[in-house]
Formats: sequence, C-alpha cells, structure tokens
Amino acid sequence: MAVHNESIALQGRLTAILGDRVTTNVNIRDQHGHDEGYRLGQSPDIVVFPDTTNEVSAVVTACADLAVPMIPYGVGTSLEGQVMAPNGGVCIDLSRMNEVLQVNQKDLDCTVQAGVTRRQLDQYLRDQGVFFPVDPGADATLGGMAATRASGTNAVRYGTMRENVLGLTVVLADGRVVKTGGRARKSSAGYDLTNLFVGSEGTLGIITELTLRLYGRLEAISSAVCSFGVLSAAVDTVIETIQLGIPVARIELLDEVQMDAVNRYSGLRYPVAPTLFLEFHGTRSAVAEQAELVGSIAAEHGGSNFQWARDEQDRNALWRARHDAAYACKALRPGCEMWPTDVCVPISRLAECINQTRKDIDQSDLVAPIVGHVGDGNFHVVIVLDTDDRDEIQRANELNERLIERALSMGGTCTGEHGIGLGKREHLVHEHGDAVDVMATIKQSLDPKNLMNPGKIFMDS
Amino acid sequence: MAVHNESIALQGRLTAILGDRVTTNVNIRDQHGHDEGYRLGQSPDIVVFPDTTNEVSAVVTACADLAVPMIPYGVGTSLEGQVMAPNGGVCIDLSRMNEVLQVNQKDLDCTVQAGVTRRQLDQYLRDQGVFFPVDPGADATLGGMAATRASGTNAVRYGTMRENVLGLTVVLADGRVVKTGGRARKSSAGYDLTNLFVGSEGTLGIITELTLRLYGRLEAISSAVCSFGVLSAAVDTVIETIQLGIPVARIELLDEVQMDAVNRYSGLRYPVAPTLFLEFHGTRSAVAEQAELVGSIAAEHGGSNFQWARDEQDRNALWRARHDAAYACKALRPGCEMWPTDVCVPISRLAECINQTRKDIDQSDLVAPIVGHVGDGNFHVVIVLDTDDRDEIQRANELNERLIERALSMGGTCTGEHGIGLGKREHLVHEHGDAVDVMATIKQSLDPKNLMNPGKIFMDS
Repeated sequence: MAVHNESIALQGRLTAILGDRVTTNVNIRDQHGHDEGYRLGQSPDIVVFPDTTNEVSAVVTACADLAVPMIPYGVGTSLEGQVMAPNGGVCIDLSRMNEVLQVNQKDLDCTVQAGVTRRQLDQYLRDQGVFFPVDPGADATLGGMAATRASGTNAVRYGTMRENVLGLTVVLADGRVVKTGGRARKSSAGYDLTNLFVGSEGTLGIITELTLRLYGRLEAISSAVCSFGVLSAAVDTVIETIQLGIPVARIELLDEVQMDAVNRYSGLRYPVAPTLFLEFHGTRSAVAEQAELVGSIAAEHGGSNFQWARDEQDRNALWRARHDAAYACKALRPGCEMWPTDVCVPISRLAECINQTRKDIDQSDLVAPIVGHVGDGNFHVVIVLDTDDRDEIQRANELNERLIERALSMGGTCTGEHGIGLGKREHLVHEHGDAVDVMATIKQSLDPKNLMNPGKIFMDS
Repeated sequence: MAVHNESIALQGRLTAILGDRVTTNVNIRDQHGHDEGYRLGQSPDIVVFPDTTNEVSAVVTACADLAVPMIPYGVGTSLEGQVMAPNGGVCIDLSRMNEVLQVNQKDLDCTVQAGVTRRQLDQYLRDQGVFFPVDPGADATLGGMAATRASGTNAVRYGTMRENVLGLTVVLADGRVVKTGGRARKSSAGYDLTNLFVGSEGTLGIITELTLRLYGRLEAISSAVCSFGVLSAAVDTVIETIQLGIPVARIELLDEVQMDAVNRYSGLRYPVAPTLFLEFHGTRSAVAEQAELVGSIAAEHGGSNFQWARDEQDRNALWRARHDAAYACKALRPGCEMWPTDVCVPISRLAECINQTRKDIDQSDLVAPIVGHVGDGNFHVVIVLDTDDRDEIQRANELNERLIERALSMGGTCTGEHGIGLGKREHLVHEHGDAVDVMATIKQSLDPKNLMNPGKIFMDS
C-alpha cells in the first residue's frame, strides 16, 4: 500500500466490517509475516480477524476494490513461506473461525470452519467413535492443511488432504462465496473444484469451511520398530509390504543420523541404523496378523530388533520418539534453525535417492538427518542450519537444489507435502513445464488482479 | 460446419495428418453419434482415428484453426450423451491408442494410452501380480473412465478414478500437449490439474495418456450374499460395517424387483427381497474374519440366507448374477431400452431415499429395478423404457427429476458416476449454484472458442 490515503481508507472499511478485529500493531504484523520455515519474515500491513464467511467475503470485497493483496493465515505452520507478505497487504487470520459445525457419525463426515486445528478436531471427535486421519505433525489448521495439500505419517493408508476433503466453502477474489463438492461420497457432477482449491495455497480464494471424511475408530492399534543393516533393506521391506496389500497405517523411515539424534534427545538406546517405525490398524487379530507378516518380511531382509508395542503406553513412547525427531534434530545444534526439505519419488527409486542424498549431505559438511514417510516415497532432509552463516546457507541451498534435481530425474516431485510457496516456484516450472502455464491461466481467470496471496506458486507475479 | 468449403479444407488438413484414418462414412459417423444412453444420436461430420498424442495435437490444431467442434470418443459406453455431437464437428476416436506403455510393479503404477479398455488392462496385468481396481461394469476405455470420473462396484474400498489417476497427458484446445501429475504417490506441487481434467468430460482437453495406481494381487478373495426383510436393515448393516472399518471391497444392494429380474434371467432362486452382495479382499484369515464380522452384523439386522462363496467358481457365479443385473432388467421387457439413473446420497439417508423412490416408481407405473453401490450411497434406478411410448418417456423423465430433487434435498449429488453430459446440465446448476460459474470461467479460460466437446456440462454453450 504505497499510497497512505488508500491505506487509511481501507482501514476504515475494514473497521466498519470487523470493529476492533483490525490491527496494524507491529508485533502482530511481524508475527503474521513468517512461518516455520527458516526465511526472514515479510510482514503484512494490516491483520484482520474475521469470525464468519460473510465477514471474510466483506474483507475480500474491500481489499479487491482497492487492489490490495490478501494473505490467508491459519496458525503459521507452513514451511515454504506461504503466509509471508512480500507485497504487503492484508493478512486474513482465520484462527477465530474455529468451530466444528457438524459431525455425522453414520456418514463418517464432518464440517468445520477453516481455523479448527488438527488436534482440536481430534479432541472434539474423541468420544464419538470416529477420527480424522491426516496428521502433518504440526498442529496446523484444517484450512491451512487443505491449502497446502498436507499429509503426514498415515497418508500411506488414509491418503492426503486430496483424498479426505469432500467439500469446501471458498471466498473468491471478488468476494463471491461458493461451495464446492458436498457430502456425497462420490460425484461426477462437473469439474472437481474441491481439488482445485486444495493445494492452491490461497492463490485462488480463501477456504473458510471444509467438509472432511472421517473413519470409524479402530478396535486395535499396534506399533512396531525394526532396524536394518542397510537402508535399501528397509525400503525393500516397505515395497513388499505394500505390494502384498498389507494395509499398514504408518510406515516411517529414520536414517542412522536421525536415530542417533533421537537416542540423544530422548535418552533411548535404539540401534544407530536405518529404522522403520510401523503402525497397524484394524481388528485385534488383523493387527496381529499384519505385524507378524511384516515382521517376517523384515526378517527376510535382515531386519533385527523387531519390537512390537501393543499397549497404548509402549505405543505412545515409540511414536513420541518419532514425533520428537524434529526437536531431536534441533537439539543437535542449539540455537540453529531447521530447514526440512521435502521430495517424493517412486518408491523403487527411494533407497537410491536417499543413499545419494546422504553422501551429498556428508560431502556438504552439513548436519542433516533424514526422515521419511517411506510408504509414499516421501522424505525430508532436516538441515540444521546456522542462519547467521552465509556459507552454510549457500551449501544448504545447493544441497536442496541437487536433491530436487535428483528427485525429478527419478520421476518424483519437488514437494510431497509442504507445497511451493515462495521457495519452490522455479522448481515447479522445472517439474511441470507447460502445465504451469495452464495453472497460471486458471489463476488469471479467477484472480485477474492477482490479489490472492500474490507471489506464491508463480514466479512472475 | 455450415460452410462447405471449410469442411473440404478441414478434411484436406486432417487427411494430410492421418492419411486414410479420416472418414465421413455415414455409418461410422452415426455409430459415433450416440452412447449407451437412450437418447437419439447426433452424429459428427467427420470421424478421425489418431495413433499418437502428436497426431491428436495436430488434429486439434487443425480444428481450432477452423473453429470446428471436437468430441473425444473411446468406445461409446457413456450414458448421458457425452459423445454426442449436437453441433457436429470432428469426433476424435482414440480406440487405436490402446497400448499399455509401462507397468511398474514395485511402484504399483502403470501408464497407458487413453484407448486401452478396462478389460484389456486387466488381461495385461493378470500375470504381473498387480491389478487396477476401478470397474464401472462396461468395458470402457480408461480415457473415457477418467473423463467421466467413473467408478463402480469396488469404489467403497479403492476409490474412483479421482483417487486412482496419478497423472495425465492432455491435448489442450489450442493443440498444446501438457503432462499433469506424475509418478510420485503424492505431491503438493501446484494446482491439481489431474483432478481438473478427470471428470471434465472432454470439455477442457483430450486425455491421451494416463498414469494409474495399481494394487498388489490379493492372497484371498471371498464373496457373500445375504437377504433382508426390509431395505433399511440392509443399509444399516452396511453403515455398521463401514463404521467398524471393515475394509469390504464391494458391497452392492439389489432391491426385490431387481432380485426377481435376476432370478428370472439367470434361473436362480434367491429370495425376492432386498439383498446385499459382498466381496472381501486380503489374506485368507483376514477375509474369513471380515466375512464373519459382516455376517454377524447382518444377522443382528435380521439378514438371512448368508451364503459365503470362497472358491472362484462360486464367486464368479454370484458376481455373474450381479453383473447380469442390467441384462436381467432388459429381459423384463424385450425390445425396450434401459435408462439407468444415477444419484448418490449420504449413506444415512440412503434407505429413506430408496424407499421413497420405490414408491414413486410404483406410482409412476414404470418397470424399474434398483441396484446400488451402497457403500458409497450411490444407486441406479434402471428404468426399462419403451422409447416409442412418449407418455412413458415423460413419466420416466418426471421420475428422474423427482429422484434428483430428492437426492439433492438429502445433501446428495445428481450423479455419482455417470457424469453430466447433455442430460444433467440443469441439475448441475441446481446442485452447485454459483460454483458452476467458476467452472464456466475455467472452461472459458482454457477453451475460449468453446470447441472442446461443446454443449456438454454447461447449458449455455
């Protein structure tokens, strides 16, 4: 907002809509100008806190009239700068829109406002015999998870946000409110707008409500952990498990560096070796059979120390170690930031991709454990970064470039679940070529003034 | 093509591209002007038979230059007029593009040309330890199945084309060739163009290649059939089964009229009552456990005659009866056409919706069995229609209108798997309201001259 008068005019209009839920407080603006990535923040000019879809629509209409950029914001757990404001503008914080609107146990669906977080929904559903499976680790909002097409540890069984959002309410760039999808389990009624908005990172409109698939709570859950002499043996175990159709719910890989970090951080004594963490869902006997089958596949591949955690306490301890992987990384170098990269390759290339990447990390003289949602071929190199060291940042950048190039050359993608944001716009072009022009054409048709989260996904905006 | 000279010019250009794979033969044109719906055909002016994506691109460029409509065609098994040519133009028959290009067993994916049919792919994969699950009944092409977002009997476990297409090659309205998605199991790289083209019925571009998810062949499959005193008991059995997370692979409902037809047609003696056909996939013991669990749920709801078919011969006999349901309907009135309607509702409303519809059918004095993919809440009223009887057509139309209205009022959709085509354009507006404007904006941006399958999905084109 270069012109001061326009800024005053906009503040006036926003205040007329939202009263005191409009702020230019510098701390609040700065807090909204960065996410959990390592980049320096870029703050919006104004932050607003709407309570309803209609208020979001009124805010968008006001911003559109004055051609001011709009950035939707949940809780700021994105990793590629999705919430940053490189062109200033109005940050639309949806965290007050945190109501669970409807739960339909029989139909296994629910409708929530976009600001409901994953844990909040989990808590809400706890006594209702149902659960929502997508778990990206962070306690992100469901609106934000949809916007970045998030997934996480149990996508191998339950899919990502792509498979688990049935419908959306979206405020478009001109303030119109549309509903996409619906409560039917499947539909062939016209274009799949739901999946166009899922993953669009706020560049096509602002998601204000979501209808989500739920799943019945399971009779039994059990977990297991197993270590391997070489990484390819762990990956081959996963490939065979999935080919056999064993419906494993989680299957996570931690490399030896990550296991060392986990041991140090959590005071554990796991072997410092490539390790699989697994979880099985189903009836008691199905879970037992699955664990047994995977155990024997693992044994054939030289897996050892297969530990099975049937009761909740053991299971929680095991997954706590997995979930603490990020903190364990950070503890390796106190005061440093984490930069989790994010590629995904066809699983037949995964061992090769990780092995080459491990060599590359070692040669780059960086501290960077590897952790992966291995059932999907998705893995993260968690670079522990001294952001004051420009040389180190440069080496990290180069490592990331080579990693993405490697993944693309193997038929993979530059991002499995973190999205494009500011960080991967060139890589998107590298990966999708002319298809990015098609994306840009759609963006232009729905947001001709380029006001919806400008600068994200596309290079030229 | 009103202007004769232009038609000659176009034929010349097409012949230069395809040689003798261009025809104006009236029989071939007529054959390409209708699908398996009951509507009178509308023939294209020219039919072409490209062999490659590049040839499709050249054909599209030629048609675009002369502003001639293009209609993609697989094998013509659509049901809502998707392949008809209300504005004439060039039918692009993709049936010669029937090569399986790549199968990756380890990654559980394959890439095929759009003209490969479902059964052809099934045959091709038979000895490779993998299978593609989506089965709409008809031996449709995979390109056509993607274009209409088809599904069928085992969507309840494996999803629809929406969940099972990983990537596409598409020829756009101006002849550009783009690739969407890829072989990674998941990706957050930009807009989900794959799912924009899946279900777009050829109105945004022509699908020429598809990368599909595959699944490992299962150790054991077993089937079961069970009849119920009242329909709601069958539906409640399904609801409980799904809530318990029992991964049933197929769960089909046939109403008493359909069962009577099946008995007559196939010389069987099933009880004339609402009946569930089920299938279980997994390990031997998992399948046994699933069947037992569902059997006891069914028993609690008064299900009787629970027959379990473990060996392949029994199983095939059972599913043959289900698959012959359509022919059984047709045999009820020799010489008549079938009009299968297609709605989908939240499963909690399914029994109510089917019961009201059954009453409506009886009052309309129509012959119309009901068969449903009940795990998804999707069902078809198969109206057996004397197309020479205008009064009967009118009654059938009115029945369909009321059925759709009923489904929408229950939070459902006007089509679960057949698509919009020519037949449901008004219903699409009724269902999705302003969101249809968003679809039209996208259509306009990618096909500004409205040449890609014009008249389908949208009213005003």
